[in-house]
Amino acid sequence: MSRYWSAFVHNLEPYVPGEQPKIANLIKLNTNENPYGPSPKVLEAIHFDVSDKLRLYPDPTSRELKEAIADFYKVNTANVFVGNGSDEVLGHIFHALFQHEPPLLFPDITYSFYPVYCQLYKIDYQTIPLTNDFQIDIADYLRDNGGIIFPNPNAPTGCLLALADIERLLKANTESVVVIDEAYIDFGGETAISLVDSYPNLIVTQTFSKSRSLAGMRIGFAVGHPDLIEALVRVKDSFNSYPLDSLATSAGVAAIKDDAYFRDTCNKVISSRDKLTASLNELGFEVLPSAANFIFTRHPAFDAADLAMKLRKEGIIVRHFNKRRIDQFLRITIGTPSENQHLLSVLDGLV
Amino acid sequence: MSRYWSAFVHNLEPYVPGEQPKIANLIKLNTNENPYGPSPKVLEAIHFDVSDKLRLYPDPTSRELKEAIADFYKVNTANVFVGNGSDEVLGHIFHALFQHEPPLLFPDITYSFYPVYCQLYKIDYQTIPLTNDFQIDIADYLRDNGGIIFPNPNAPTGCLLALADIERLLKANTESVVVIDEAYIDFGGETAISLVDSYPNLIVTQTFSKSRSLAGMRIGFAVGHPDLIEALVRVKDSFNSYPLDSLATSAGVAAIKDDAYFRDTCNKVISSRDKLTASLNELGFEVLPSAANFIFTRHPAFDAADLAMKLRKEGIIVRHFNKRRIDQFLRITIGTPSENQHLLSVLDGLV
Repeated sequence: MSRYWSAFVHNLEPYVPGEQPKIANLIKLNTNENPYGPSPKVLEAIHFDVSDKLRLYPDPTSRELKEAIADFYKVNTANVFVGNGSDEVLGHIFHALFQHEPPLLFPDITYSFYPVYCQLYKIDYQTIPLTNDFQIDIADYLRDNGGIIFPNPNAPTGCLLALADIERLLKANTESVVVIDEAYIDFGGETAISLVDSYPNLIVTQTFSKSRSLAGMRIGFAVGHPDLIEALVRVKDSFNSYPLDSLATSAGVAAIKDDAYFRDTCNKVISSRDKLTASLNELGFEVLPSAANFIFTRHPAFDAADLAMKLRKEGIIVRHFNKRRIDQFLRITIGTPSENQHLLSVLDGLV
Repeated sequence: MSRYWSAFVHNLEPYVPGEQPKIANLIKLNTNENPYGPSPKVLEAIHFDVSDKLRLYPDPTSRELKEAIADFYKVNTANVFVGNGSDEVLGHIFHALFQHEPPLLFPDITYSFYPVYCQLYKIDYQTIPLTNDFQIDIADYLRDNGGIIFPNPNAPTGCLLALADIERLLKANTESVVVIDEAYIDFGGETAISLVDSYPNLIVTQTFSKSRSLAGMRIGFAVGHPDLIEALVRVKDSFNSYPLDSLATSAGVAAIKDDAYFRDTCNKVISSRDKLTASLNELGFEVLPSAANFIFTRHPAFDAADLAMKLRKEGIIVRHFNKRRIDQFLRITIGTPSENQHLLSVLDGLV
């Protein structure tokens, strides 16, 4: 605390990311990273750009990366905004598009960064409870609002909403911005980017941190109507002209161009998830239906925090949220087949 | 314009960075990049870290980089804050420390990003005119304020304030935060980091984009009292947990550790600056005394905008600000000896 601080800082409760411990041989299933490294072509592209040219500023518009994303998703470059990870992109969205009189709406169980952005930018919000089986019900969002945001699939549940449901929401909610946060969409969902041309109030965000195996390079993006993108560009250019460094831009371009590698690794994760789910069911765990690269699971007879602690003692870290409604769940990232096998054998000894 | 925007976005006038044209053989003297590439040890360190590990999130606290900076400047890690370029660091400073009732003070001729941050975070500000010979006079800042910020050396003038003057300001101004933006300090000034232990309201910011030849990697930092740093960390962790990617962190650590390379390139730039200044004087140019890696110059008989246009036709870009008091000046980045020589020979034909 300090009298020098801006007033709002005194009450700010920052987001707490999953830990990144530096312990050897740890099986790290706590922050939803991809178990497979980036495409070899990505590593090659980065090596190629490590040169004296790093003395120069990057392109402030990251044009090449925006073009690669636009090509991939069959939209125009003017529909694309890129940033230093999707958290930065989301930050700019909250600032540029969600400061309105009626409250912003998002689920009670969701990405815990949303209420933090609301504090940071003084945005009034209202949480909408998930249904009893932890699903988003579009009908619950049809009320006065200054914006709507949720992840699809939702986090940390992993549960997916069909594209038809999202379109139903967009048809009914035309007066405020709707953001679909698709950090995990490539592991089993259908992107809403196809709806961007039809709904001028839709923004879809994605990240290179999960399905494109590049959490270490910090690349996120948004796709939406050029008018919405313009608001994000104004805020970005009033904060940091060059949010993506030269190597991140090169890595992003190479990653999006290696479609075969991307599809292959996503499919491997999906297949592992299905196997892990079946094996956990055999051990008596309930697993919510997941379309993400993690599963959300509980055991009717064993306390989740206690299980997480015991797993940690065995060198496996998973994520436990000490939060109402979900404090008996564990969020477990899908690892490699051998990591998943090890997890199962340890759990087998615990339950 | 769109009804979906947050209200403040309608009037936001973003910062306009110097252009980054993709034209071959251009002599680029417009954005104060270092004419020399990064240390070979930096390139080596980046290559070393291009691996499958990029699938993992970076350390959200960038601990290694903070330790390297703390070691170099003989302060504690708790005194150091790092960000995605010093623009991001400055953005967080404005947000976290400058939202107060009395106006923020900065010079009328200075880094043109400052008023943009004020718009972004709704901070009232007052500009203090430089003296007739374009100097900052500390006496002008001894008035009621919610904070004080200026670059040292100042930009785009290049003029340096002595450390004794900064300490005089700090002794007199104890009730608000004073930020010394030292983007260019390594080219001839003495850092105020040595004063941080004595003045709990001082923050010094620096960047790796100029003296450490890493504009392409986006690394900036702040040094100050741990209470001030805590405010920045809270805002950063409420916006983006991982602003520095893994390779930027490695590059930063290697850059700060290669002190010999750093000193050598700084000395070369300083020596080039002094030669360029002498030659420009011979051509009839007035050059403000510079402690930066650029000079600010005018010719009594030739219009600055016109000169900039003619230089551009010859493949040389410099920066011209169409702004009151300085519209007859050109800001010229110090290039390599051969670039400077070419600039001089072109100017010789123009004046």
